[in-house]
Amino acid sequence: MDAYNAPMKNHAHDSIRAIIWQDHHLRLLDQRWLPQETRYLDLHTAKDTAAAIRDMAVRGAPAIGVTAAYAVVLAARQAYARYRENWLAHMQEDVETLAQARPTAVNLFWAIDVMREHCAAIPKGQDPEALLLEAATRIHEEDIAANRRMGELGAALIQGGRDVLTHCNTGSLATGGYGTALGVIRSAYAAGHIQTVFADETRPWLQGARLTAWELVQDEIPVCLLCEGAAASLMREGRVSWAIVGADRIAANGDAANKIGTYSLAVAARHHGVKFMVVAPTTTIDMQAADGDAIPIEQRSADEVLELGGQRVAARGAQAWNPSFDVTPASLIDAIVTEKGVVTEPTREKMQNLMKS
Amino acid sequence: MDAYNAPMKNHAHDSIRAIIWQDHHLRLLDQRWLPQETRYLDLHTAKDTAAAIRDMAVRGAPAIGVTAAYAVVLAARQAYARYRENWLAHMQEDVETLAQARPTAVNLFWAIDVMREHCAAIPKGQDPEALLLEAATRIHEEDIAANRRMGELGAALIQGGRDVLTHCNTGSLATGGYGTALGVIRSAYAAGHIQTVFADETRPWLQGARLTAWELVQDEIPVCLLCEGAAASLMREGRVSWAIVGADRIAANGDAANKIGTYSLAVAARHHGVKFMVVAPTTTIDMQAADGDAIPIEQRSADEVLELGGQRVAARGAQAWNPSFDVTPASLIDAIVTEKGVVTEPTREKMQNLMKS
Repeated sequence: MDAYNAPMKNHAHDSIRAIIWQDHHLRLLDQRWLPQETRYLDLHTAKDTAAAIRDMAVRGAPAIGVTAAYAVVLAARQAYARYRENWLAHMQEDVETLAQARPTAVNLFWAIDVMREHCAAIPKGQDPEALLLEAATRIHEEDIAANRRMGELGAALIQGGRDVLTHCNTGSLATGGYGTALGVIRSAYAAGHIQTVFADETRPWLQGARLTAWELVQDEIPVCLLCEGAAASLMREGRVSWAIVGADRIAANGDAANKIGTYSLAVAARHHGVKFMVVAPTTTIDMQAADGDAIPIEQRSADEVLELGGQRVAARGAQAWNPSFDVTPASLIDAIVTEKGVVTEPTREKMQNLMKS
Repeated sequence: MDAYNAPMKNHAHDSIRAIIWQDHHLRLLDQRWLPQETRYLDLHTAKDTAAAIRDMAVRGAPAIGVTAAYAVVLAARQAYARYRENWLAHMQEDVETLAQARPTAVNLFWAIDVMREHCAAIPKGQDPEALLLEAATRIHEEDIAANRRMGELGAALIQGGRDVLTHCNTGSLATGGYGTALGVIRSAYAAGHIQTVFADETRPWLQGARLTAWELVQDEIPVCLLCEGAAASLMREGRVSWAIVGADRIAANGDAANKIGTYSLAVAARHHGVKFMVVAPTTTIDMQAADGDAIPIEQRSADEVLELGGQRVAARGAQAWNPSFDVTPASLIDAIVTEKGVVTEPTREKMQNLMKS
């Protein structure tokens, strides 16, 4: 599938190219400026790419994975330019820096591992760039294909033209393209199964307000933002049938780490009989993590909560607790949708069967 | 009790004077500028005071009630200046404007009703200002006294030096002085029963980040902010024993309307076995509202969610759902603390008994 063909209609999932390999380097749409400005970062080194991941110019577990794959190409090329024979050893520091960019999204480590295997298979002395670029591009294209497939599988679970609720951004900006949870929403909307998409604004970074609304407006899908605190009331009013979210890492038992606020939604969904769907490619599943307790949760700077747009909001002396992710236990999840299939009421055994399939 | 004596120590609950009658007019601390700037509004008419309430220069149900009481003094004086004999009839339009400033906090209507009775009792032709000012000042002082009493009663429920979680601002800024939920927290902290106060930042107005943190920092009570989406995770970690909130209107069966996000906290609290306390004076109880469905919920402008600091955040074309309050059913409330006593596991009958006492 070629995701880059210009569409007839300006659908976000077709036209947004957040991660581009062009003119022998990586171009990243700097999501911190959206939706006001469309700025791209031109990245020529893995170290700069690691900084872009750490500082959230690019975010979303699958997008981080795709970005890291391209970054390994940059690391290898830079090492090969100086050390023709021994480039593999000399790129390890860059790869380490990449791996330390963010701790929770397992796609980062998965992509680095896949690319490391490709590196190891390249004959000594051979220029690695072409082969590695091909591998990174394949990761990118397979992610888009996985999103399309998850879109179909997830949409099939949604019936009846009701509204749905989503959290954070899980669309073209958060993935190789199309989206995980937002891919399901796109497919379900196209099939006439959704009327309005309610989207949490998603503090503190406002990915819902800044990114999800932007993507859905471009796709002409009705989107209504709300503050996280209002989500339980929305459910109480009976307005949503499903809460649909992505994941940054899913443990072997089906526990799912995702953007902070997801767990709160899951608790509220269960209380109100709203169904809860997690959408993620199998690259997000970490069978080495026995359960959610084994998933490292990134704590980000208190300033993200204490400041707003660079201005201090809270009184000096106030602290802030700012975990970037939370863990939703499998017991609160009705369906995990992957490109390999749907797992309802996930258990360790069901997850094992999925991964073997 | 004289709340206005200068304290030895700069405790917020002693030193913050958010509502002042001075030099024959009303001075309101304009809370929209806090904590960066301490600006006061000088109000000489009821209409201007209604605008200050509507535009949230002052907020918090008890503070709105106290403000409205003083505003009736202004309305009466203005009417009396022009219509010596018939001032009562000529102030009705101003009082109506006041009553329409905000729909949910019942303290507004309660205070207006009390002041109307005082107006009606004033002999024809007599200058009403002195008597009405005395009545308004009494409402103000009685609110502070009620807060102090609730502080004692609520603090007695909290044992063991655990952390607590609160939402929005319910302190000196939201009341005549001291605070409802924050009054309980102040008293419990003073008694050594609380270590750290976790406070929701409280989108979209950020009353937690801007106001609650400011008050607690001044009182040297450790305060840690979090985004609403993180509250359920905080509870899951077992870090808080009580969630303590205020109320804008409590129905006859114990259902409680409060700042949007409160209901979400109550659902999460019940899920985690965290106790849930609502603290409000009996002026917040509306026995005419049979249950929460009878409480009007203010919908505020979508721009409060779509914009941030006057800057558009969300893409043009996105909508927003922005209810300012939600209703927590009595079944999720462990204790309602009033100045007349504590109602545990509230029911219609228990509420009736409280109000008769």
